[in-house]
Amino acid sequence: MKVKVSRKAHFNAAHRLYRQDWSFEENEATFGKCNNPHYHGHNYELIVSVTGEIDPQTGYVIDMKILKDIIRSEVEDAFDHKNLNIEVPEFKELNPTAENIAVVIYNKIKPKLKRELELEITLYETPRNFVTFTGK
Amino acid sequence: MKVKVSRKAHFNAAHRLYRQDWSFEENEATFGKCNNPHYHGHNYELIVSVTGEIDPQTGYVIDMKILKDIIRSEVEDAFDHKNLNIEVPEFKELNPTAENIAVVIYNKIKPKLKRELELEITLYETPRNFVTFTGK
Amino acid sequence: MKVKVSRKAHFNAAHRLYRQDWSFEENEATFGKCNNPHYHGHNYELIVSVTGEIDPQTGYVIDMKILKDIIRSEVEDAFDHKNLNIEVPEFKELNPTAENIAVVIYNKIKPKLKRELELEITLYETPRNFVTFTGK
Amino acid sequence: MKVKVSRKAHFNAAHRLYRQDWSFEENEATFGKCNNPHYHGHNYELIVSVTGEIDPQTGYVIDMKILKDIIRSEVEDAFDHKNLNIEVPEFKELNPTAENIAVVIYNKIKPKLKRELELEITLYETPRNFVTFTGK
Amino acid sequence: MKVKVSRKAHFNAAHRLYRQDWSFEENEATFGKCNNPHYHGHNYELIVSVTGEIDPQTGYVIDMKILKDIIRSEVEDAFDHKNLNIEVPEFKELNPTAENIAVVIYNKIKPKLKRELELEITLYETPRNFVTFTGK
Amino acid sequence: MKVKVSRKAHFNAAHRLYRQDWSFEENEATFGKCNNPHYHGHNYELIVSVTGEIDPQTGYVIDMKILKDIIRSEVEDAFDHKNLNIEVPEFKELNPTAENIAVVIYNKIKPKLKRELELEITLYETPRNFVTFTGK
Repeated sequence: MKVKVSRKAHFNAAHRLYRQDWSFEENEATFGKCNNPHYHGHNYELIVSVTGEIDPQTGYVIDMKILKDIIRSEVEDAFDHKNLNIEVPEFKELNPTAENIAVVIYNKIKPKLKRELELEITLYETPRNFVTFTGK
Repeated sequence: MKVKVSRKAHFNAAHRLYRQDWSFEENEATFGKCNNPHYHGHNYELIVSVTGEIDPQTGYVIDMKILKDIIRSEVEDAFDHKNLNIEVPEFKELNPTAENIAVVIYNKIKPKLKRELELEITLYETPRNFVTFTGK
Repeated sequence: MKVKVSRKAHFNAAHRLYRQDWSFEENEATFGKCNNPHYHGHNYELIVSVTGEIDPQTGYVIDMKILKDIIRSEVEDAFDHKNLNIEVPEFKELNPTAENIAVVIYNKIKPKLKRELELEITLYETPRNFVTFTGK
Repeated sequence: MKVKVSRKAHFNAAHRLYRQDWSFEENEATFGKCNNPHYHGHNYELIVSVTGEIDPQTGYVIDMKILKDIIRSEVEDAFDHKNLNIEVPEFKELNPTAENIAVVIYNKIKPKLKRELELEITLYETPRNFVTFTGK
Repeated sequence: MKVKVSRKAHFNAAHRLYRQDWSFEENEATFGKCNNPHYHGHNYELIVSVTGEIDPQTGYVIDMKILKDIIRSEVEDAFDHKNLNIEVPEFKELNPTAENIAVVIYNKIKPKLKRELELEITLYETPRNFVTFTGK
Repeated sequence: MKVKVSRKAHFNAAHRLYRQDWSFEENEATFGKCNNPHYHGHNYELIVSVTGEIDPQTGYVIDMKILKDIIRSEVEDAFDHKNLNIEVPEFKELNPTAENIAVVIYNKIKPKLKRELELEITLYETPRNFVTFTGK
C-alpha cells in the first residue's frame, strides 16, 4: 500500500536566464526580459513528494521532520536569499530555468532518501508557472 | 529527462447544462439548478500542463510565452466572457460540463504543440470542483 | 471589546453589464465584453463580516450558525445559479456590477442582524477583482 | 476517454499520534509533540478524485451531487468535529497519521462507487503537509 | 507616514467550546458539535499586523525577524500542538472561541511591542471563519 | 455610498536591503541575508484599492480597465523583471523594503486618479509578509 506524502517549502532568490556562450542578442531573443543582466527574482514555492509503503509500526511513509530537515539543508540553506547564477555552484554553467532548478533539487534530495522511495519535485516559479519532475 | 511544465489561465463564461433532445423534466432531474434556462456562470481556472524533454540549449521544455499565446488564442479569446452554449461552436450540440470543456480545450491545444509533447488539462469549474484530462 | 467576525460563502451566477436606456454602442463603449447580450458569469466569493461586542456568556459576537443561515437565505438561495439581470428582482433596473451587488447584499443582510452590529461586505467577482462595502 | 473529476471537502478533528503498545518515551521519540496525550487538532482538507469514462448522455463521469453525498455520509458525518482516536472506530487500534486516514477514507468511499471507477484520495493535514493514496 | 506590516503564522490545537457552569444540555444547545467533550481541533492561521511610522534609517516599521520571534514565543510555543482548554492557562476559565483566542493573543503580543505601535490580530479558525481584533 | 474596489497585480524583481552610507557589518547586523550583495528576489503580489462613490450611471467606482492600465504603466512596466536597486530610479537612494516600495507605488498611482478617490496599497513581499499603506 503505497502513499505519496508531500511537504511544502519555499525560498527567495535572484536569477537571470541566459547562456554565456550566446550573444546578448541571442539571449534576448530567447529569454526576453528574463535575460536582464541586473537579475530579477522570485519567491519559489516547492513541493517535495515522497512515495513509498506505509511503515506498519509508525503509520508513516517518512517522518515529516526528517523530510523537512533534508529540504532545509539541501534546498533552503543552499538557495534561499541567494543569486542562483553567481552563488549556487550547480548553476555556474547551467541556465537556472524552473525546469533545471527542479532537476537540481531532485538530484540533491534523492540520495538522502532510502533507495526504495520515489521522489517528485514540483516547483512554482510564480503562482502561474510551475514544473514537475519525477526523475524519469 | 522529462519535465511537466504548467501554466495557469482563466476565463469567465455563462453556461447551461441540458440536452436539447430531453424534456425539461428530464433535464431538471439530471442537471438540477445547472439546467436554469436563463444560464448561470463561472470563473473557470485552467491549468495547461505540457510534458517533454528539457531542451539542453535553452533549459526549457517549451517557452512559456509560446504556451501563453496558444492558451490565449485557443481558449481565452474563444471562451472568455462568452455564453458557452450559444457562442462557442463546440458546444452547439455538446453539453458544456466541466468534463466536456476540458476535452474540447485539449483538442484545441494539442495540434498546436510539437507532436512529441504530452498534454494535460485541469479545469476548475469552482474552487471545489475540478476535472483533469490527459487525452487517454 | 469589539471583534469583527467573518464568514466566507459563494454563489455562481450569470450577468450582463449594461443600461437599458443606453444604445448598444454606448454600452459597448463603457462595459466592453461585459455587455455581451448572451451573458457571461462568475463564481462570486463573498465575505460577510460582522463587528460587535463579544458576548461574555458565550464568547461569541454572533453565532456563526445564525450568520451562515442568514447568508444562505438572503444570498445563496436568492442568487446562486441564477441570471442576475433576469431572475433577481433587485437587478431588474440596477446594473449588476460588483459594487451594486455588494450594496444589495448589504441591504438584504443588515435588517436581519441586531441593530448594534456593524456589517461589512466583501465580494470577489474574480480572484483578481473585488469590492468592499461598509454601509457608509 | 477517461477524465478525473475531483471534489474538495473538509472536516475538523482532534487526534494524537501514538501506539498503545509503546511506552510514552518511545512514542515521544517517534511522534514528538504529536504524541500530546491531551490531543491537538487540524482542519483536514480533502480532495476526492474519481476517474472514469465520460457518460455520453450526460457529459458527466459521475454526478457531483452523488459524490458530494458519499463524502458527506462516509467522511464528514463520521469524522467532523470528532476525536479520531476515541470516536472513530477505524482508529481504535490504528494510528491516525495522515497516511492512515487517507487509506481509511479510500476504503470507505471505494465500495460506494461503481466498480469501474478509479479513486484517488488527497488529504491535507495542514496547508504544508498532505498525502495522496490511489489504492495501489 | 504610517504603514501596517503583517506577518502570517499558524498553530494546530484541540479545543472544546463550553462553559463549566452550564449543564451539558445548555452547552449543546449553544455550541452544538463544538461542545464535543472529547475535543476537536483546527489549523489556526494567524495574521499579526503592526502599524507605525517607517523608520527612515532602516525603511522598516518593525524588523520582521523581531516580530517573528515574538509570535513564536508568545503564540506558537504556547499554543501549537496543545489542547487549549487543558494546557493553556488563559483558557482555564475562558471559552476558547476564535474571538477570545484573538483577544488573548492581542494581550500577549501588545506588551512586547513599542508603545507607539498599533496591533491588529486576525485569526482563521477554518478557511471559512475568521475574526479580527484591534484592541478597541 | 462609498465602495472600495480592489485589483490584484504582480511583478517579479530582484533587490538588496542595505544603506550605502553604512558599513557592510552594520548592514549585515540590520538586514541579515537580505543584505546579500549579489541580490535576491521576490514575486511581489500587489493589491490596489480605490475608494469612492458609486457612479449612478455606470455602477462603477472606477472602470477596472482604467485601473488596470494605470497599474500596468506605473508599476508593472516600471518594476517587473527589474533589479529595484539598480534600475528603478526611486530606489537609487531609498532602501527597497516592502514598506518603502508600497509608499513609492502609492505616490506613483495617486496622481493618476481623480482627486476625490482614496487609495490603499497592499504589497505581499512573500506569501507570509505583507504591508499596507493608505497615504496617512
